[in-house]
Amino acid sequence: MSEKPGAVIWFTGLAGSGKSTIAGVVEMMLRERGLPVENLDADEVRQNLSPNLGFSLEARDENTKRLAWMGKMLSKHGVNVVIAAVATLRKFRDRAREMCPHFVEVYVKCPLELCQERDPKGLYARRARGEINDVDGIDIPYEEPLNPEVVIDTSTTDIEACALQVIAKLEELKYI
Amino acid sequence: MSEKPGAVIWFTGLAGSGKSTIAGVVEMMLRERGLPVENLDADEVRQNLSPNLGFSLEARDENTKRLAWMGKMLSKHGVNVVIAAVATLRKFRDRAREMCPHFVEVYVKCPLELCQERDPKGLYARRARGEINDVDGIDIPYEEPLNPEVVIDTSTTDIEACALQVIAKLEELKYI
Repeated sequence: MSEKPGAVIWFTGLAGSGKSTIAGVVEMMLRERGLPVENLDADEVRQNLSPNLGFSLEARDENTKRLAWMGKMLSKHGVNVVIAAVATLRKFRDRAREMCPHFVEVYVKCPLELCQERDPKGLYARRARGEINDVDGIDIPYEEPLNPEVVIDTSTTDIEACALQVIAKLEELKYI
Repeated sequence: MSEKPGAVIWFTGLAGSGKSTIAGVVEMMLRERGLPVENLDADEVRQNLSPNLGFSLEARDENTKRLAWMGKMLSKHGVNVVIAAVATLRKFRDRAREMCPHFVEVYVKCPLELCQERDPKGLYARRARGEINDVDGIDIPYEEPLNPEVVIDTSTTDIEACALQVIAKLEELKYI
């Protein structure tokens, strides 16, 4: 068993804010330091644990609980875990915080208009076509974090600088 | 990242065969050697990942897939994983084998009559009272492993000797 738990770094923010991108860069930076790291992709976890889960608030509740539990299990053995998942309600993230001793909440801030412009998964376009009606920040209120460990603004700061902000916080907290 | 993956040791067998007991002792033996180990309790995984899953064959399929995926994620980082779960169909266990590089299938053999006598969870008693009708080995055919790495017989061999058989196999395979 490792002497200390890994950090669980949860990137929260709207679709298109840049969560997955920054999470991927942080993952790479940790790996380059020779640290054990796992990227728990929210979509992959869905696919493997429950492909038919859906996107109701209840289903989201369940999926964030799973992500938190997976994070807990891995971090227990010294693995650092990055998770990019909206986790739209504060209580979803607070539960994860309670479950994981070295929890780091990263609020990936970005104006909705810019998220819609980027629209990497075509989510906002699908909504505009009336195909879906459960988009965070529009149909489902997104609860901004109150006291996140890190706030990064991807509308004003480049990717590398955002990732380095997270790394700096991990160092400051002595999690890495 | 650890240099080699952890072993995923899957204990399969009927309810009451002694899977969880032997798994717990193997876990303890690995821990005593200073090796990282996680015991993925099938009931705890259910509770955390999907309390409403149920016990249909489809639900069992899903739960064993989850256990295998959790095993894969942890073993990837050098954690040895013990799993006690019936996994009643061969294809459930074969899928786990495909997912986990250092997979060890342990068939915990025990005559149904003795399992019924032990009945640690009161499962057979509940069936006798007509409360459930989905017990492995009675209502659902249990598919015996064809080529398990280890076969232990808990009707003739004591607990410690059974666990040591598993440890010996792990050493033989150079997984520990």
